[in-house]
Amino acid sequence: MALVKVYVNYKQSILNPEAEAVHKALKRLGYADIEDVKLGKYFELTVADGKSQAEMDHEINEICDKLLANYNMENYHYEIEDAEAAQ
Amino acid sequence: MALVKVYVNYKQSILNPEAEAVHKALKRLGYADIEDVKLGKYFELTVADGKSQAEMDHEINEICDKLLANYNMENYHYEIEDAEAAQ
Repeated sequence: MALVKVYVNYKQSILNPEAEAVHKALKRLGYADIEDVKLGKYFELTVADGKSQAEMDHEINEICDKLLANYNMENYHYEIEDAEAAQ
Repeated sequence: MALVKVYVNYKQSILNPEAEAVHKALKRLGYADIEDVKLGKYFELTVADGKSQAEMDHEINEICDKLLANYNMENYHYEIEDAEAAQ
């Protein structure tokens, strides 16, 4: 099995109020050295064996484009790991 | 500057309906080889220079415990990178 880690973040130009709120809360708590906060989503997909690297890349990109990320507002990147090794 | 990547996931025993919904949607779309979906949060904190590694670890753990993760339901881990190198 493969473990695919997908990171979805807002694009630079998109305002993210949740990240802003975390940043402000950190300032209130006294963490003045935190200069920026970004907040995104993190998916771990466990994928059955039997696909080549190219097929896997194709499938993951398709899944991200269709479901996990909104291409108007979000960027994504992913890493493919061996699930057993990652346990 | 340092870039700290924080990953917050639900603990194994905690039901995550959002991840379940994504998993079901993937099945409906025909991706039968996706065996499991986990969904968590992904933070990127930009931290000013001037702290030792130990001070940085202390601060990040404190921030995670206080604000970013709910220790009853969530686990977190983080990686510290050099922000300039990561651009």
